[in-house]
Amino acid sequence: MARIRLGMVGGGNDAFIGGVHRIASRIDDRFELVAGALSSTPEKAQASGEALGLPRIYDDFKAMAIREARLKEGIEAVSIVTPNHVHFAAAREFLKRGIHVICDKPLTSTLADAKKLLKAAEASDALFVLTHNYTGYPMVRQAREMVASGQIGTIRVVQVEYPQDWLTQEETFKQAEWRTDPARSGAGGSTGDIGTHAHNLACFVTGLEVASLAADLDAFVPGRQVDDNGHVMLRFKGGAKGMLWCSQVAPGNENALRIRVYGDKGGLEWAQEDPNYLWHTPFGEPKRKITRNGAGAGEAAARMSRIPPGHPEGYLEGFANIYSEAADAIEAHRTGTPLSGDVIYPTIQDGLRGVEFIDACVRSSKRNAAWVDL
Amino acid sequence: MARIRLGMVGGGNDAFIGGVHRIASRIDDRFELVAGALSSTPEKAQASGEALGLPRIYDDFKAMAIREARLKEGIEAVSIVTPNHVHFAAAREFLKRGIHVICDKPLTSTLADAKKLLKAAEASDALFVLTHNYTGYPMVRQAREMVASGQIGTIRVVQVEYPQDWLTQEETFKQAEWRTDPARSGAGGSTGDIGTHAHNLACFVTGLEVASLAADLDAFVPGRQVDDNGHVMLRFKGGAKGMLWCSQVAPGNENALRIRVYGDKGGLEWAQEDPNYLWHTPFGEPKRKITRNGAGAGEAAARMSRIPPGHPEGYLEGFANIYSEAADAIEAHRTGTPLSGDVIYPTIQDGLRGVEFIDACVRSSKRNAAWVDL
Amino acid sequence: MARIRLGMVGGGNDAFIGGVHRIASRIDDRFELVAGALSSTPEKAQASGEALGLPRIYDDFKAMAIREARLKEGIEAVSIVTPNHVHFAAAREFLKRGIHVICDKPLTSTLADAKKLLKAAEASDALFVLTHNYTGYPMVRQAREMVASGQIGTIRVVQVEYPQDWLTQEETFKQAEWRTDPARSGAGGSTGDIGTHAHNLACFVTGLEVASLAADLDAFVPGRQVDDNGHVMLRFKGGAKGMLWCSQVAPGNENALRIRVYGDKGGLEWAQEDPNYLWHTPFGEPKRKITRNGAGAGEAAARMSRIPPGHPEGYLEGFANIYSEAADAIEAHRTGTPLSGDVIYPTIQDGLRGVEFIDACVRSSKRNAAWVDL
Amino acid sequence: MARIRLGMVGGGNDAFIGGVHRIASRIDDRFELVAGALSSTPEKAQASGEALGLPRIYDDFKAMAIREARLKEGIEAVSIVTPNHVHFAAAREFLKRGIHVICDKPLTSTLADAKKLLKAAEASDALFVLTHNYTGYPMVRQAREMVASGQIGTIRVVQVEYPQDWLTQEETFKQAEWRTDPARSGAGGSTGDIGTHAHNLACFVTGLEVASLAADLDAFVPGRQVDDNGHVMLRFKGGAKGMLWCSQVAPGNENALRIRVYGDKGGLEWAQEDPNYLWHTPFGEPKRKITRNGAGAGEAAARMSRIPPGHPEGYLEGFANIYSEAADAIEAHRTGTPLSGDVIYPTIQDGLRGVEFIDACVRSSKRNAAWVDL
Repeated sequence: MARIRLGMVGGGNDAFIGGVHRIASRIDDRFELVAGALSSTPEKAQASGEALGLPRIYDDFKAMAIREARLKEGIEAVSIVTPNHVHFAAAREFLKRGIHVICDKPLTSTLADAKKLLKAAEASDALFVLTHNYTGYPMVRQAREMVASGQIGTIRVVQVEYPQDWLTQEETFKQAEWRTDPARSGAGGSTGDIGTHAHNLACFVTGLEVASLAADLDAFVPGRQVDDNGHVMLRFKGGAKGMLWCSQVAPGNENALRIRVYGDKGGLEWAQEDPNYLWHTPFGEPKRKITRNGAGAGEAAARMSRIPPGHPEGYLEGFANIYSEAADAIEAHRTGTPLSGDVIYPTIQDGLRGVEFIDACVRSSKRNAAWVDL
Repeated sequence: MARIRLGMVGGGNDAFIGGVHRIASRIDDRFELVAGALSSTPEKAQASGEALGLPRIYDDFKAMAIREARLKEGIEAVSIVTPNHVHFAAAREFLKRGIHVICDKPLTSTLADAKKLLKAAEASDALFVLTHNYTGYPMVRQAREMVASGQIGTIRVVQVEYPQDWLTQEETFKQAEWRTDPARSGAGGSTGDIGTHAHNLACFVTGLEVASLAADLDAFVPGRQVDDNGHVMLRFKGGAKGMLWCSQVAPGNENALRIRVYGDKGGLEWAQEDPNYLWHTPFGEPKRKITRNGAGAGEAAARMSRIPPGHPEGYLEGFANIYSEAADAIEAHRTGTPLSGDVIYPTIQDGLRGVEFIDACVRSSKRNAAWVDL
Repeated sequence: MARIRLGMVGGGNDAFIGGVHRIASRIDDRFELVAGALSSTPEKAQASGEALGLPRIYDDFKAMAIREARLKEGIEAVSIVTPNHVHFAAAREFLKRGIHVICDKPLTSTLADAKKLLKAAEASDALFVLTHNYTGYPMVRQAREMVASGQIGTIRVVQVEYPQDWLTQEETFKQAEWRTDPARSGAGGSTGDIGTHAHNLACFVTGLEVASLAADLDAFVPGRQVDDNGHVMLRFKGGAKGMLWCSQVAPGNENALRIRVYGDKGGLEWAQEDPNYLWHTPFGEPKRKITRNGAGAGEAAARMSRIPPGHPEGYLEGFANIYSEAADAIEAHRTGTPLSGDVIYPTIQDGLRGVEFIDACVRSSKRNAAWVDL
Repeated sequence: MARIRLGMVGGGNDAFIGGVHRIASRIDDRFELVAGALSSTPEKAQASGEALGLPRIYDDFKAMAIREARLKEGIEAVSIVTPNHVHFAAAREFLKRGIHVICDKPLTSTLADAKKLLKAAEASDALFVLTHNYTGYPMVRQAREMVASGQIGTIRVVQVEYPQDWLTQEETFKQAEWRTDPARSGAGGSTGDIGTHAHNLACFVTGLEVASLAADLDAFVPGRQVDDNGHVMLRFKGGAKGMLWCSQVAPGNENALRIRVYGDKGGLEWAQEDPNYLWHTPFGEPKRKITRNGAGAGEAAARMSRIPPGHPEGYLEGFANIYSEAADAIEAHRTGTPLSGDVIYPTIQDGLRGVEFIDACVRSSKRNAAWVDL
């Protein structure tokens, strides 16, 4: 199959996540980056595009969408890696021209935008892939497969957390700038930036949906305008309960996303910082360390894995797996063939649920952590 | 100093915790067990007492209290290790006769009893020591000392949890019998049995008190009459926030009590199953592994430690430390000398707070996890 | 059964290991310490004995042996916890008077003494128990049982190590004084103090004996008279191979004794600093964490364990297990009943093998690490 | 800079390592694979080349070397990823035509070939890069930098090991076929395949060279023609000592390469399966966990790292770092500018040392593990 022609919005010189998307798109060699509107000012967009040697450089995403849609060999897909508040407008331009969208999370900076974007996606023939990248880790797939196949039994308790420490003191990072500005990040701080990942992971692994939540959010650092710590109790449809903790002020935590799932037949534990291991305890038996591609790992993980056990894959490979799934979906779309049921990627519906989660957290917290339905 | 003459109420042949108290009382050779009313029936009490070779065996605690108080060389202290609902009546008998009480937690099975017992203790000259044994671990003392000395800064977030798995299915354990019977355990199940430990540990390490909490309790196992899983959000006086999770239905967890404390200057992590390590991250520096009696450990931990670093001490030594603190206090009482400020043991006030915690959890949960003040 | 009347030689105020023996003898309440010659000078012996409140205090071990043997209620057993060079003379005095000996390792400071002591023990009716205490850890028993029952298959490779760091620089510790003096410790430094533990553990777990070894010993710290690092290749009878590393100059290691055993059916890993876990990999299956008293642990470990899984036992309990085994053996001796086959303790033959190991290491190293038969 | 035009020899459809090289060459987007002779038969070479969509496909490496050297836009560099016995002949063809070589380890299957290849490389203007890929891990660079800057002090002891378990039983893996055939792998089995990595890593991190070694090699699996377990004692120039263990029959080990380095000022520990952490103990201080790009990590690691701490990089990124270093070197060569001293890659001299290491192990083992100089 020919490589998929890819464009990018955002991800200029200073951005962290743009580079991640570019590496992720290259790892399995199924995309070719050929166009970009990489920054919010024409000058920076031009400079960043040149630095990458992009064939076609645009001043802004709208110009790119219009022109690429007209080109015979224009981009087939676009990665949107801007600050949150730009996702909506950018994605809409490409969706309405039939260009597939691969978009960072959270889907949008407001719930209203998320709902409008869902309609735009439904009206478009193009695919929409949300990069909840942690769902691309092989051992997360393994966990999901084990839950789905009943090995854990009926799920009762889900403990999920995503602590970081980089915003423990007043931010001095470039990366922090827009993330702590509600106009650009949305109403959620830690909830939006990382709580959504935790929420998505909990749902992805268990197959459950959150029915309602009670959230107690704080902005501990003086002057901070968005939450930097969130304590959330979860009630899932069907009766399982959960706790979700996200924090950017927990010294000693880098990106310590971790999930634990307990059912009446067993338990599972997975930690993002050590992603090649999944700990499984069948009730009444010793805890087992299942390793990526190692003994005990099944097909769902093997699909997402490139190298033998004991040679760790990491964040970039997990991210690349989302791009690989997207490539499978885009190829099926190209050829009009049905997509294999094995291919899984976060959708715009997942994105809407993520924004609803943020919105519910913020509303609950304002009402003294009252229960709010999702 | 002569060994302290000790009696025991409860802790007969089948009981787990009685044996723990006896070993704990022996490790540092400061107590001598000389009398007991070890079971709830005279026959079992007699048989259990004989099995231990006790000099004086009683049919019930009241008879023991009366007679020992009259003996010239009667017991100076009594360990009460019965099911929860007996604590109150037993402790009262000894307190009113001036015999020091070392009592298991939770203090009582009802809040009303706890308040009455506090009055009884205040009216007595005798000491009251509650065996919240996890406070005896050297690295817990180390953590407390580091918080108190300001090394962690202003505390913002406390994550504490105590998951177990032994009640994942319908109980078949002898130990489970009274623990899942609200008439004997009190209204809290997991909250009373282990949630109180987590609550106590959080307060002990941080020096903070819980102002209010919101609790979502479940009894997941069909037919269970008390909670076997508790999700609790905490608000501490002064503004720190916390989450507390206790569970007896989390497969893969044995006694996985764990605390994490985050302030504006650093973070601490400690886990009961690996108790010789305290992980400390000064913000902006690498995480450090402080070991019991090893480099970086201070005086508060050294007081509680018997052997060199790398030779693990465990649960029994931590428990013995509570007995050692009690021995120091009893010796000071014997001689009328002031007690060193270094000596710390959980008090009846801590016990009352623990019962208030259980009561608040149960009340909050009944009110849809509304916030309840402590 | 009545408590066993115990004496102690060595273990005065400044010693580390004497206190360990005393706690170990108390934990299961089967011994009572009633006499002691606790130090090498009469004054210190007297002071140390008084500090412990010993009923009978002696100036030296010979006086103690003579008098106690004559007393109607004299000691039945003696713990010898002196520096190595005293073991021989002290043990001989008690053995020849029919008093059971519980002796620290290494057995003696010279091979000649070890052989003589073996003869003395064979000529005596008294028991001889060597405190290779690490064999008392429940999960070490578990490992031994798994190997013996064939779960690991034919053993091929044994990796054992005991690194420490306390002698990284010129010694300033009291404990170091005699340990680095060949006249008192024997010809081996790290090999004698900790290498023997590693050697014993490898043989205990696997049931194998070392046929020959090649050792490369070093004294890295300037002026040190005995080895502080030993690299040893092992050839076991039957064809298995091993490596043994002992070091007192490895910063970051406290008492990091660790053994790994590999056969054609599986592998085992155990580490002394985290002694409640045994890692077992059946070949082709995920690694399993077997916990003390937890799922997957068998009878051999359960015999040696006091409390539920997840409540860690440590070094003192492992040491106490040797005392418990000794108590079983002494009670069987008292009553003339056969000793249960479950009871295992390190014997004087094990002690001789340990001294042979040290001797072989020293001889091999002097001959450029040539192979030396044991 | 324009991407470097790359060819590949070996790495056809069934091979593991060819895919690794291709991903590694893509991650940082500095190479473009344009030609290949991917298999040992023309049919397979053609099929594998087509599967990858290679612009230019060759039947064999010689034809490729000849033609590419003549093309105006021919390959500038070639990756040689064949079984060991082909390295020599293939590398020679490219070197003599001035095409840079990126070659798998071990350098060659015989020492004679290694020496001849060194001469060929010295006679060529082309660069030679050996993919001892573990030297590309950021925290390995960090360790090397810390040793070089004196933070560990004078190195005394190096413990390095590389256990695997995949050959515990008779091989059934495609990958095993040539690796256990001495005609293709060379005289070393585990020593050649993974022992060389351990040897290289020890030298890379410490800056030391092995002066002599004593090796005890075994082929435990019946019928195996090359060693599957190697025990090696090392003496480094300057007086440090080491142990090296490599094994392919150690159940529970996947690719458990691990190094520990001890000097008079501190210790370091690193494990390949958890590569984002470097454990550092300054003597007398607590152990510290230095994380990739985290607090405490320096410039040497930062150069090799793409993403923030807590987002794990893995084996492929470490491998890609070797390609990045090669790209820097090739670009400097293109432009005739001096290469930055920061750029480090394993050279053909390292390769020769690796083959000397294998040869010395085999010779030593045949002579009853006598010491052999390197």
